[in-house]
Amino acid sequence: MRIALSTGGGDAPGLNAVIRAAVLASLDRGWEVYGIRKGYAGLLGDDEVVPLTRDSVRGIGHLGGTILRATNRGNPFHYHRTRPDGTVEEVDRSGELIANARARGIDAIISIGGDGSLAIAQQLCDQGMRIVGVPKTIDNDVAGTISTFGFDTAVSTAIEAIDKLHTTAESHDRVIVMEVMGRSAGFIALHCGLAGSADVILIPEIPFDIERVCEKVRARDRAGRYFSIIVTAEGAFPAGGAASRIGASLPGEMPRLGGVASSIAREIQERTGKETRSLVLGHLQRGGMPTGYDRLLAARFGGAAVRAVADERWGHMVALQSPHIVTVPIREVLRHPKRVDPASDVVMTARATGISFGD
Amino acid sequence: MRIALSTGGGDAPGLNAVIRAAVLASLDRGWEVYGIRKGYAGLLGDDEVVPLTRDSVRGIGHLGGTILRATNRGNPFHYHRTRPDGTVEEVDRSGELIANARARGIDAIISIGGDGSLAIAQQLCDQGMRIVGVPKTIDNDVAGTISTFGFDTAVSTAIEAIDKLHTTAESHDRVIVMEVMGRSAGFIALHCGLAGSADVILIPEIPFDIERVCEKVRARDRAGRYFSIIVTAEGAFPAGGAASRIGASLPGEMPRLGGVASSIAREIQERTGKETRSLVLGHLQRGGMPTGYDRLLAARFGGAAVRAVADERWGHMVALQSPHIVTVPIREVLRHPKRVDPASDVVMTARATGISFGD
Amino acid sequence: MRIALSTGGGDAPGLNAVIRAAVLASLDRGWEVYGIRKGYAGLLGDDEVVPLTRDSVRGIGHLGGTILRATNRGNPFHYHRTRPDGTVEEVDRSGELIANARARGIDAIISIGGDGSLAIAQQLCDQGMRIVGVPKTIDNDVAGTISTFGFDTAVSTAIEAIDKLHTTAESHDRVIVMEVMGRSAGFIALHCGLAGSADVILIPEIPFDIERVCEKVRARDRAGRYFSIIVTAEGAFPAGGAASRIGASLPGEMPRLGGVASSIAREIQERTGKETRSLVLGHLQRGGMPTGYDRLLAARFGGAAVRAVADERWGHMVALQSPHIVTVPIREVLRHPKRVDPASDVVMTARATGISFGD
Amino acid sequence: MRIALSTGGGDAPGLNAVIRAAVLASLDRGWEVYGIRKGYAGLLGDDEVVPLTRDSVRGIGHLGGTILRATNRGNPFHYHRTRPDGTVEEVDRSGELIANARARGIDAIISIGGDGSLAIAQQLCDQGMRIVGVPKTIDNDVAGTISTFGFDTAVSTAIEAIDKLHTTAESHDRVIVMEVMGRSAGFIALHCGLAGSADVILIPEIPFDIERVCEKVRARDRAGRYFSIIVTAEGAFPAGGAASRIGASLPGEMPRLGGVASSIAREIQERTGKETRSLVLGHLQRGGMPTGYDRLLAARFGGAAVRAVADERWGHMVALQSPHIVTVPIREVLRHPKRVDPASDVVMTARATGISFGD
Repeated sequence: MRIALSTGGGDAPGLNAVIRAAVLASLDRGWEVYGIRKGYAGLLGDDEVVPLTRDSVRGIGHLGGTILRATNRGNPFHYHRTRPDGTVEEVDRSGELIANARARGIDAIISIGGDGSLAIAQQLCDQGMRIVGVPKTIDNDVAGTISTFGFDTAVSTAIEAIDKLHTTAESHDRVIVMEVMGRSAGFIALHCGLAGSADVILIPEIPFDIERVCEKVRARDRAGRYFSIIVTAEGAFPAGGAASRIGASLPGEMPRLGGVASSIAREIQERTGKETRSLVLGHLQRGGMPTGYDRLLAARFGGAAVRAVADERWGHMVALQSPHIVTVPIREVLRHPKRVDPASDVVMTARATGISFGD
Repeated sequence: MRIALSTGGGDAPGLNAVIRAAVLASLDRGWEVYGIRKGYAGLLGDDEVVPLTRDSVRGIGHLGGTILRATNRGNPFHYHRTRPDGTVEEVDRSGELIANARARGIDAIISIGGDGSLAIAQQLCDQGMRIVGVPKTIDNDVAGTISTFGFDTAVSTAIEAIDKLHTTAESHDRVIVMEVMGRSAGFIALHCGLAGSADVILIPEIPFDIERVCEKVRARDRAGRYFSIIVTAEGAFPAGGAASRIGASLPGEMPRLGGVASSIAREIQERTGKETRSLVLGHLQRGGMPTGYDRLLAARFGGAAVRAVADERWGHMVALQSPHIVTVPIREVLRHPKRVDPASDVVMTARATGISFGD
Repeated sequence: MRIALSTGGGDAPGLNAVIRAAVLASLDRGWEVYGIRKGYAGLLGDDEVVPLTRDSVRGIGHLGGTILRATNRGNPFHYHRTRPDGTVEEVDRSGELIANARARGIDAIISIGGDGSLAIAQQLCDQGMRIVGVPKTIDNDVAGTISTFGFDTAVSTAIEAIDKLHTTAESHDRVIVMEVMGRSAGFIALHCGLAGSADVILIPEIPFDIERVCEKVRARDRAGRYFSIIVTAEGAFPAGGAASRIGASLPGEMPRLGGVASSIAREIQERTGKETRSLVLGHLQRGGMPTGYDRLLAARFGGAAVRAVADERWGHMVALQSPHIVTVPIREVLRHPKRVDPASDVVMTARATGISFGD
Repeated sequence: MRIALSTGGGDAPGLNAVIRAAVLASLDRGWEVYGIRKGYAGLLGDDEVVPLTRDSVRGIGHLGGTILRATNRGNPFHYHRTRPDGTVEEVDRSGELIANARARGIDAIISIGGDGSLAIAQQLCDQGMRIVGVPKTIDNDVAGTISTFGFDTAVSTAIEAIDKLHTTAESHDRVIVMEVMGRSAGFIALHCGLAGSADVILIPEIPFDIERVCEKVRARDRAGRYFSIIVTAEGAFPAGGAASRIGASLPGEMPRLGGVASSIAREIQERTGKETRSLVLGHLQRGGMPTGYDRLLAARFGGAAVRAVADERWGHMVALQSPHIVTVPIREVLRHPKRVDPASDVVMTARATGISFGD
């Protein structure tokens, strides 16, 4: 048996721990293991398929990043190829990819990636490739699994940031708006906001009214709490009419990403007269050493993926359904992206402890 | 409505976050909240019931310890009272406790504690008190809930310790035996051992053979890995005949607690000739700032406990059944203590990545 | 003896440890201690002078922020007072301040602050007040002392950020420009850049040429290192002609603060064609729990300040001249602000290990 | 020019950062660099001298441990060689070592080590080898330098441990005795004890009276502080007559190392009747990722060592004399080991804040 590991898309703390566990568990079964560098595209180029041994994965369990570089996110079904004249054409190279895999004697692939990579995995499976998926998303927006590695680390980094902002916001009587990842799903903002005792949490699942946010800031002032910490997901957006003011978006439309924090901060300062600052955590959430929780989950995913290969669960993805690791059909997972449920206990508890969602 | 919070037993990171959320969520409903210091015994003494306000819980969400001191672990049903002549008698003061609670106008109690405190809560419920439980155990040995606050922090502390020991074990060609908490349940050892890439994990659920442990150490030596990291739960014990050598216990009997690491280290050094050291993490696992995971879980438990009081779920305990917080009857919980399942995916993955359980 | 503590200006991790040590050491001598809230202005208002006891400082040694709120940074010699008609006048209220201090029986003040607060302290000393200073600056730009508390914490926070950015920059083939504090002094950028293995460090003391920065990025690309980490102090600025491109400043002039990172990032992306991102650490550097180094230094400063009061070292500031804590005349300190010496061993080692300063 | 790096003795966080900086700075001068594995003994064996390149040191600046394994601590002047009959003889292999170095064309050695390694370096210099030293000691007991890398990390680890013990000691009304490294010098205990707000600090430089320690514990009890944290260096010992009780030592003699904490704990529990626990931090202090302070200092040492080689400062060691890195003759350094000065400001401040040294 010869298997190959592929990682697609952005960095997520825990990737190396998945790779380490999957490699060791494969070798334990007497299999050969290869790593495909640069995502699926690695199967379309030269020199990007490398053997992975015990030595390759020694001491990497706690390291951030990935020993398989994950930069090329090309989709083999819609591959962008540059013509001799410099123009770009889109071609389907999936057949070539599958042929290359077969030529190298690769019997099965463990594909570690998010929605995009999983969708490609499903398409390749439909064409006969044997693939098992491992979900990877910082945002926790993949369905079918309670959580994925990297999410706990991102939330922890954001909580540490809130802790630091708290002391300084308080001693300067300031409002600080901190932007975290989450274009479509507000899990990072929600979890770090509740755990970090933020005052306002803004998420895509609950459109906000900037005036309600300002009202919270003013109410705190009246209670002698002269500072406020506002956590916003990058994809948070204002409901209805107020939208024109935030991020220059049309009502209900998503504002310009990456700038939501500064737009909100400007608006609050203007409306409340309080000194307001913004901060974008950005890449700090993706990098660094994974938390213990993520190291464990990643190792469990890696081990379970190898068992799934042995069980020939092609087209399935490993998933956490606590306390168990199970496999679920990728097709099912892709059907319903995971979002924050505004009626969930986390939101309810946040509201009960005085946190405003700006609604 | 007037409710009171009580914490029993040992320290667990996250206690203050539970208290903070429960107090804020109660005040949000217009209730009065009191804190009972020193566990249930606080209802038998003077000056141990104090009002909890917004100010009482300001800024405590990330602090270790508990603002309600939890030192007296007396059981009101079996209370040890010192007679004038200095001898000690055991008396049932539960009636007095209930009367005191009523006299103070306390309508319901949120009792945060482990197996022991929950059992007392159940007995008090049987006598008519209105109690909702919040599970608290570092060891993760309470059934009915995926995990409890404090456990993730303890595991994280243990993983950090393994990381530190790794570099130094490797540069000194040493065997290091690290003892973590877990008298009856090996979850901490199992989770930190897998996430921290230990070489051997010893837990109460899988009795070990010291010779198998030594064989693992020797096998690593032969492979050019001149060091080994062994994680043992304090309650790990040898199977059958080898027991006489470890901790001077009878076969199958549990060895002298707290000393298992040094006994194992001595034995390994004697049998393999390799320099072997032991380390007992002890109280380091109980203290300090909770991880982000535990801060979130604790806040969710605190909020859910208040909803459970509002819903009159007397005799129930809040519990994590991911992704939901639910309530489960305490009576059910006490029936089956939670233990590591030797057939679980975590154990399987540990084995597949080369970790020995000494069996 | 009755002394008072005052903290001025921004937050710095370690403030509470200074206060704790100074209060305990004063009580140990049988003195009374008061805290002046909101900086010197606290002596001009009501209710801002509070007694500090053993209980006031219990358990605060490791907490960020300050128990004395430090928001009003008013200068009593140039006090901005709002007239009834809404216009603002500048008045000298120093006499009033001194009279108030005397009326409260305050014999001496320990003033914890940066350049600005120390200058006011010197002026008040000149008018007969008895003041001992404790230097406080995140930027490490106060002369006469090897370092001040808060600086090590800020550098550590910045190093952690670089570590996180490294893994993600590498797996995305990206250039990341990280902006740290330092308007006039580049110590934070220099120290975190060398310790964190950055590729380029830009500081106010060494004006940069953006083309040299780009050349470094391109040289790394040619060597197969497709990512670069650039650390810039907020006060870094381009030498001569290139200035017009960065931050829209005139040649040699300081660019618009807070925006230097994004200006540099834009410029690099345009010139090299490489995807470039910027990140402003901002307030994250000021807040949070102090490092061990800062906790120790802060405690030493607090203890030394009390000894300096006992020794009547009015107009002096405590200072670290390793391994000793000494006192130096504030007047001397203010004469020469501390800056990075471009010929220092730190800069030399940074250059020798391949780090570019863009010059 | 061809130079070689050698590390001797135990692990110290920052070793890899020294190696990285020294390698890069050497390559920058066009030199060849080799690493000698296993300390000086590596020059007596085969296969232990390896080339160090840019690739060898990539990404190691923040890792604990050392890429040069440092296990064999043999002294070439007193080398223990096993005879064919199994008996051990002591031989002088220094001539052989020097010959081997010459045969490999090694022009100079950078020797990173503590007192022992530096003494050997001095002897080898006396015989004509060209060596520059880099001080390495967790305990901070090497003279001539304000501090060495690894010390700040060890102190930080110990402070974190105290923080964790604080919350749990307080909630259990316990006395906890924590033992840190320091056989002859008490710097770790002193620094972590003051920064961590311990109640008692015991160090070799200030012999203690166990009754005074108990008196401190009792005084705290009377003041309503029912717990105490005692930090002891492993080399702390009782003055005069009390010695017979602690560690079964003769008066004034040093007690059995490694067991001082448990001896003290037993004694305190017996004399005060308070539940007392002990904890030995042990190897946790040596391992793991270096702090930012140590990463910077280590890099500065590495860079300075290369400059010292270029300047032919044979027989000198690089040293921190803040804010400068200087070189000092190893001969001078060895003359006076560094110890805690009982009259230093750190000790004075500790006493003033209520910390007892048991004297």
